[in-house]
Amino acid sequence: MAELRREPVERRWVVITTNPPRGPADYVPYKPPYRVQEPLDPCPFCAGREGMTPPEVFALRKEEGWSVRVIPNKFPFFHIEGVFDRRAEGMYDAMEAVGAHEIVVEAPDHDQSLASMDSKHIEEILGAYQARMIDLKKDARFQHLLILKNYPGIFNRHPHSHLLAMPIVPRTIDDEIWGTMDYYKRKERCIFCDILREEQSAKKRVVLETPHFLVFCPFASRYPFETWIVPKLHSPDYHAATKEMMVDLSLVMASLFSRFQKLLADPPYSLVFHSSPLQPRFHQEEYHWHVEIRLRIGLREGFEWATGFFVNPTPPENAAAYLREIE
Amino acid sequence: MAELRREPVERRWVVITTNPPRGPADYVPYKPPYRVQEPLDPCPFCAGREGMTPPEVFALRKEEGWSVRVIPNKFPFFHIEGVFDRRAEGMYDAMEAVGAHEIVVEAPDHDQSLASMDSKHIEEILGAYQARMIDLKKDARFQHLLILKNYPGIFNRHPHSHLLAMPIVPRTIDDEIWGTMDYYKRKERCIFCDILREEQSAKKRVVLETPHFLVFCPFASRYPFETWIVPKLHSPDYHAATKEMMVDLSLVMASLFSRFQKLLADPPYSLVFHSSPLQPRFHQEEYHWHVEIRLRIGLREGFEWATGFFVNPTPPENAAAYLREIE
Repeated sequence: MAELRREPVERRWVVITTNPPRGPADYVPYKPPYRVQEPLDPCPFCAGREGMTPPEVFALRKEEGWSVRVIPNKFPFFHIEGVFDRRAEGMYDAMEAVGAHEIVVEAPDHDQSLASMDSKHIEEILGAYQARMIDLKKDARFQHLLILKNYPGIFNRHPHSHLLAMPIVPRTIDDEIWGTMDYYKRKERCIFCDILREEQSAKKRVVLETPHFLVFCPFASRYPFETWIVPKLHSPDYHAATKEMMVDLSLVMASLFSRFQKLLADPPYSLVFHSSPLQPRFHQEEYHWHVEIRLRIGLREGFEWATGFFVNPTPPENAAAYLREIE
Repeated sequence: MAELRREPVERRWVVITTNPPRGPADYVPYKPPYRVQEPLDPCPFCAGREGMTPPEVFALRKEEGWSVRVIPNKFPFFHIEGVFDRRAEGMYDAMEAVGAHEIVVEAPDHDQSLASMDSKHIEEILGAYQARMIDLKKDARFQHLLILKNYPGIFNRHPHSHLLAMPIVPRTIDDEIWGTMDYYKRKERCIFCDILREEQSAKKRVVLETPHFLVFCPFASRYPFETWIVPKLHSPDYHAATKEMMVDLSLVMASLFSRFQKLLADPPYSLVFHSSPLQPRFHQEEYHWHVEIRLRIGLREGFEWATGFFVNPTPPENAAAYLREIE
């Protein structure tokens, strides 16, 4: 059978199929094509090859070398120089893709991952994100900063993430803000704060709870084992989170990615930080920053693309139970 | 360098990167994982194995056997029996996924594809879609009918497509209708009719023009070689298209898929028919039915998922030129 569930923020319907519900064993053989990508040789992100990359914009120095390093992307989606040049092209609209596209090299060692790093190291990565965001935020041309990690990396398997400073607010954030504001107008409450309370009370979709974070598989999970990490304290801005919260978040991430690895044989995933747009006229106090994780397992692209909605054969209650129990 | 282009209907920004622009040769080595899927053996869609499928709901009979056959999907996303049972679950909304999910078996022969079939046969498939839509449209529970084809099929490579009757209007159609209506309010013109005129005049993104259809790579193509087939006659409903138009569309499709095959070594693709919602209170006279084709080449899923916008390294002007010239 199949049930339709509505994601409450963006108001997307998701089809949860349960005939039968799929568990970890159903996904394990799946290997996406980019896992067989030839490794870059030599890897320009490895310690000792700093000369192969553009000059770094940030580094956490150790007695010897560095632990986290941020460099401009050699192949950026957004380029830092130039002006927007907003223009018509016939009936259409175009502009230059002005922005910044930085690579956060997460470790000097090629073979690390979030599942193998200790939480102390993850904390350093989280700190590097914050430091770069606080710096990039000063540039009034950027409306939004986005942190995105694809594991394994598509063109290079060395552990790294992307930091994008964009001249527009991405559609996913825009849709969430629209839903957040609409909910706030009706209830004068934050929808994410309400979701936190709902999940804490229902319990069945919770993976992990810490002093500062709730980790759960959302009610209308679009993807098998989709997981959100939501801070308990209402705040629109990831970059404003305290040191204490970052320590807690690093523990959460170390635990969560080690569970994914054990449960699903080192699955490929994407991870994104959702945070409020930056500039005063787009900044939203009502928004609630959080982290979303999508495992890249299962195959529904054609259907998702065609309809804009999602079919998920692993109910989030099952996914959360598997993840809770594997510890 | 990179340019941002705005898709005029849904108003999505797309990043077109051109550093350097990628052509067919850059995509040819890419093989998605489902192409190595083990074939179903024996294939239940092949002629002579009709007993392996649920009883057919439609068939085009030949002197011997059939040429196109429609059957209920054994593993449906939407099930035909039952009631919606709209309900709250805590703060969330859920309902039963009531609908229909049919498989259009496009040919008795396992090894055909839209690139190998003659246009006469494609015309029969197009007719089967229309016949099933006219029948399913009578069921007042369904708000929307969607035709979707994934090539090659994910679980079975026998040529087939999906016909989904859904209890809700899919998000992609909803977004397009929102954009169409908003444009109509401002201009009292159909945005798709305006796009047709723009593309006919600009010429550089046109792949093919016939008496009834314009085939072009849209200005803000989200995917490399994304192609739209748009009827010149304004009409919201695919199922209402005339026989003469279907003959023309079958010629267009035979030519287009043979070009894709020659240019990109038999690329995987998804194809969807966008048509107005059915029921009088959702039906939109201002909407303009059309076909969208996405080749499944290149890899940008993480970025698309994270931001809801798209990075395309093949400008549509280049894509259209390649497709025009390969004939």
